[in-house]
This record gives sequence, C-alpha cells and structure tokens, in this order.
Amino acid sequence: MSTPRNPIERFHVVIPAGGVGSRLWPLSRASAPKFLHDLTGSGQTLLQDTWDRLSPVSGEDRIMVVTGQAHQGAVVEQIEALDLKNLVLELSPKDSTAAIILAAAILAKREPDVIIGSFAADHVIQESEVFQAAVREAIEVAATGKIVTIGIEPTSPSVAFGYIKTGDALSVAGAPNARAVDKFIEKPKMATARKYVESGNYLWNAGMFIAPAQLLLDELAKSEPELHKQLLELADAWDGMYRESVMHRVWPNLKKIAIDYSIAEPAAEAGLVAVIPGKFTWHDVGDFAAIAELQSNGRRGNLAVLGNAKVLADSSSGILVSDTERLIALIGVEDIIVVDTPDALLVTTKEHAQRVKQLVDALKATGHGDLL
Amino acid sequence: MSTPRNPIERFHVVIPAGGVGSRLWPLSRASAPKFLHDLTGSGQTLLQDTWDRLSPVSGEDRIMVVTGQAHQGAVVEQIEALDLKNLVLELSPKDSTAAIILAAAILAKREPDVIIGSFAADHVIQESEVFQAAVREAIEVAATGKIVTIGIEPTSPSVAFGYIKTGDALSVAGAPNARAVDKFIEKPKMATARKYVESGNYLWNAGMFIAPAQLLLDELAKSEPELHKQLLELADAWDGMYRESVMHRVWPNLKKIAIDYSIAEPAAEAGLVAVIPGKFTWHDVGDFAAIAELQSNGRRGNLAVLGNAKVLADSSSGILVSDTERLIALIGVEDIIVVDTPDALLVTTKEHAQRVKQLVDALKATGHGDLL
Repeated sequence: MSTPRNPIERFHVVIPAGGVGSRLWPLSRASAPKFLHDLTGSGQTLLQDTWDRLSPVSGEDRIMVVTGQAHQGAVVEQIEALDLKNLVLELSPKDSTAAIILAAAILAKREPDVIIGSFAADHVIQESEVFQAAVREAIEVAATGKIVTIGIEPTSPSVAFGYIKTGDALSVAGAPNARAVDKFIEKPKMATARKYVESGNYLWNAGMFIAPAQLLLDELAKSEPELHKQLLELADAWDGMYRESVMHRVWPNLKKIAIDYSIAEPAAEAGLVAVIPGKFTWHDVGDFAAIAELQSNGRRGNLAVLGNAKVLADSSSGILVSDTERLIALIGVEDIIVVDTPDALLVTTKEHAQRVKQLVDALKATGHGDLL
Repeated sequence: MSTPRNPIERFHVVIPAGGVGSRLWPLSRASAPKFLHDLTGSGQTLLQDTWDRLSPVSGEDRIMVVTGQAHQGAVVEQIEALDLKNLVLELSPKDSTAAIILAAAILAKREPDVIIGSFAADHVIQESEVFQAAVREAIEVAATGKIVTIGIEPTSPSVAFGYIKTGDALSVAGAPNARAVDKFIEKPKMATARKYVESGNYLWNAGMFIAPAQLLLDELAKSEPELHKQLLELADAWDGMYRESVMHRVWPNLKKIAIDYSIAEPAAEAGLVAVIPGKFTWHDVGDFAAIAELQSNGRRGNLAVLGNAKVLADSSSGILVSDTERLIALIGVEDIIVVDTPDALLVTTKEHAQRVKQLVDALKATGHGDLL
C-alpha cells in the first residue's frame, strides 16, 4: 500500500439537499424547496452559498449533492461546477441516513480512505473563514477514527435545536479546539435550555458530520444491518450499468431514519464522537421570523424585502418575500410577514411564524396538495 | 295645457356614476371604480344595487346613468334594462354639477315638468323600502317647488360627512316627515359633530337631491351663469345629430364644481331646500374599514371575505378582498385588511384604512399611475 494521504486530501463534501421547509410555505414548496431560494438577499440561493462555503476546503470536484429527482434541473442550473458523477438523485425522500450513507458508500467505493463531511444545503453561516477553519480541524480529528460534528456556540437558550454535551478536550494535532462528545440531547424545554447555555458545556447540534466513510458504514452495520446491506448494494451498482434497475428495486424499501438515531447517538455512547465548537454565526432559517431577524441583523422596526416586488411601505416592519413582480403596499403593519407567490399569499406576523407548519398540514388535509 | 301630472309620474332618476374611490385602492381603480364592484357580498355591484333600489319608484325606463366613456361597456353589461337614450357619457370628469345638471337639462328638454332625483351609484342602503318611502315623500315636496334632500339620521358623531341643519316642519300632503333645511355644514371636528348629534337637529348629508329639473336649472343660472349656458347648449344638441361635435367643443371648458356649492348651499340660504329624514341604514363605504364594518354587522373578531379567493384563516379578523383566485392564508392577524388584485396587493389594518388615499397619492407621485 502507498503512503497514507493527508487527511485534507481525503476530504469529500456531501450536501444532502432535501426537506421542503414547511414553515417557509408558500415560498418553499415540494417543487421548489428552501435550498433553491435566496433567503438572505445575497443574490445566491442557499445551495449556492453552501457550495461556495465548502469548495475552498474540498475543491469543486469533491462535492457530492444528494437531492430529489425533481430538483435535478434546478441543481444543475444553479451549480455549474457540479461534476455530474457527484450528483445523486433520490427516487423518493428516505430521510438523512439513506441520503448521506449512500453518498458515503459510493465515495468509499471510489476511494476507500475518503473522509466525508455532510452539511445541510439550507443553512446560513455568516463567517465563512471561521467555519472553514472548524471544518479543517474536524477533518484532522476524523482521520484519528472519529465521527466529528461541528457544534454551534449558543447565543440564546433556544428550544428549536438539539444540543451536544461536550466532554474532555482531545489532543489532536491541527485541531486545538476538539473535544469529546458526551451525548446528543433532543430539543429541550426552555428551563433546561437555559441551564445548558449557562453551564457552557453545551452546543447546538447543527447536523454537521465529518468522518471516514468506512467508519460511518461500520457504525450503520451495527445499528441498522439491513439498511447498511441495501445501501452497499446500491453503491456497488452505482458506477456500473445496472444502477437504474438496482435503484428501482432497492430504494423504495429503504428504512426512513435520521442519521442522528442510526449513527450519531449510538456512536456517541460508544465514545466515538468528537466535536469542534463553531464560533461562527449560524442560522437554520427555519421560519420567516428567522429570515426577518437575519435580514435586520437584530434591529427592530425594519422592513426586510426579499425578491423583486415593487414595495411601498409606510410605518411597517417585518419581512416581505415576493416571488412575483406585483406592487405590494403596506400601511401601519408591524412585525408583519407577507409572502407573495403567483398562486398563494401568506399574511402573518413574526410571532406566529412557527404556525405556518400547521397551516401546511391543514392544506394537505383539505385537498390543496397542489399548492404545497 | 293638459292637466298637471301627479308628482310621482313626473319623477326620473339620475345616477351620477363617477369617482374612483381612492381609499379603496387597489380594488377600485380609474378603470374599474367603486360602483362597478360588489362591496357588500350581495352578488351585485353597487351600481346594480342602486338601480334595483330606485327602479321600483321610477320604473326602469326612467333612470338615467351619467358616467365616464371608459365605463360604457361595464355599465351596459351590468344594467341590461338601461335604455341607451338614458346613458350619458362624459368626455372627462367635471364634478357633480356638470354631471347632474346636464342630465337635468336633457330630461327637462324631453319633459319640461320632470322632477329628477339624483343618487350616487356607490352608496349602500340596507332597508330599501324605508328609503323608497323617503324618496316618495321627497317627490311630493319637490313638486311644491323645493329642492329636497334626504338626510340620514346619524348613528354616531362622524367627522367623515357633512351635516344638514334642519328647520321647521313643513306641511305637505304625502310628506309627513318633511322639514325645512336651515343650512348645509361642511365636515365638522369631532367635538362639533358630538354637539350636532346630541341636539337631534342635524342629519348627515348623503348628497341626494330631488327637485324639478327646471328649478335646478334656474338656480344654476343665478350662481354659475356661464356653466348654465354651456349645459343648456349641450342639452339642446343632445337628442339631435350634432351631439358629438357640440360635446367635443363645449365639454372640455366646463367648470368643475360640486353641486353642493353651485346649487344646494345658495338655495338653502334662499329658503328653497327641504329635507326628508332618512330612517334607513346608509353607508358610503368610503374605505375598507367601512366595508369590514358593513360585512361584520358591527360584530368584532370576524373575518369578512369578498371575492373568490380560497381562504385559510387562523385566529384572524378584518377583511379580505380578492380580485384573484389565489389561495390566501392568514395566521394570527387581527383587524387586518388584505386586498389582493392581479397587479397589486395591499396589507394594512382597519385603523389605517383612511391612509390608503395618501398611498395612492404617493403612487401618482412616483410614476406608478398605471396601477391607479
């Protein structure tokens, strides 16, 4: 065997680009989910921002995108640099284990020593260089045989995120901030979240995982042997002539399970998980109130505008998101959320932004699935 | 000369159908003003409601509509029973004196003893039979050589309307409620409006006038002799072959003046005006808050919906007016006004409904006249 490669040379990004983002209806739809939209006013979509944030670490030829068949056209159009051998199209949504571990298995087949880093396509990170430094540390730790996550230093006792309880500092060259992970914790209640933040020992779980692909496969083999076997079968066929037929036979039967449950939590119990604390500003832009916050940089009384609407606003604040060219006039509405699309209009307030999900459920129940 | 006709036989309605209704933007436009819309949810436009309210008094062949050339198609389509000889098309808006007195002059030429009753096309009246009884009383009084108005018994000290100060009771057969008019008063301040309502001697001025056409012409001859001469010239030519050429020569030069100033106020000073108090529910539906009130019958916490929108509302109240087929979702917005049209959207609250006019002015000033 040849000399082992440097960890950074082994690195390959995986971007699972799925999830509709129900709380961002009617902008985000099954046909045009969150990651295909510019939600920051950057002039780029969240997927493009994610690509630009990671390619300086991995190189553009080492980023794999896993997405639904329906989004193939949009993804290829938005990411011109995407090598088509790095585009994995799902037949149907099967949750994060199938998406990420199929990518891991395909990449491990091509490069057995590959270290993959999985990052959601629809998060917002403000200080890219701080983020990239954290990823580089994580790669060094992953090369020691760990599953590494990047945990976000909490800025408030949020109940919208899961938490990571950190353990002892690790001693890894090139990763001065690495710590062991004691355990992953589900979204807490507010009182508990406050204690977590005060203690200084907890980080937000942003769902970022960096690990040798083979280690992820080995862990899945222990927790979900059937799913492991199916994903290996798919990966074996992937770069050959039977991909389509094997895909149509195997994919529909895959178990839907989040990678948090199939790999991250059991591995943490086994002492296999490490964390790099992320000292950058991170948002999962889960609802329109979050986008408004992001746009206003925390200042109140502003009206954020996303899109090409002509806007006339008087004594109004909040956020206006437009997918049309219509004139939108606002008078005397505070903390308002207006989302204007060709076939649906939402009017609510920042306070009620989370309730958009219930509304989407109601639309499903009342036979308006065509609008989702 | 033959036996004089009964007053009711001499009656002819004039409906001046003009005025954009700026406070009802973006529903009401120069191209589709207020009277062409269903603002009550009756299934009919305000113009059709006005027609149906008056035709039982006058007969359908005795109603003249005065409107802008641009609205000819819509008016003829909405009022199938309209006799085209009773359609007067204005070349441009010239305020109420020109509209009403041209109609009066044309009708007086056809029937010298005609009594005309002028009623706005865009008001809402709930008890039609009570209204019709008041009109019949007004016709009896008009036949005695008076200009008669129907004043509305105020339900609140509104500052949105002018007031009529009533004088002594009159003794006219068939008009038991008739009183003299002391004077007309412009929109007052709130403290004054309160005194008016408490005194019981003041009525809202709803701009309804019933009078012999010849009396109106005589009064105009005194106050505005040039305008009187021009309108007579137009009326002389109206039913002949030179209508178009005279119209194009004379109309552009007409003075713009409200009939309140040219006729009603001077005639009241001369003791020529009488009033029938109107004991019916009357609305001028001047803004969306008024429409919301009308729709909810004064109950709070309701969401009124006008138009064909699919609506999903949760914990929301106010009014939603739709000129599209889009789905509109409201969550947690109270006393909201949402007006959805193909090229413009308005979001405001009932509290700020009056400010829509300033917004329309701002649109004019910023070169968005195409949206007005």
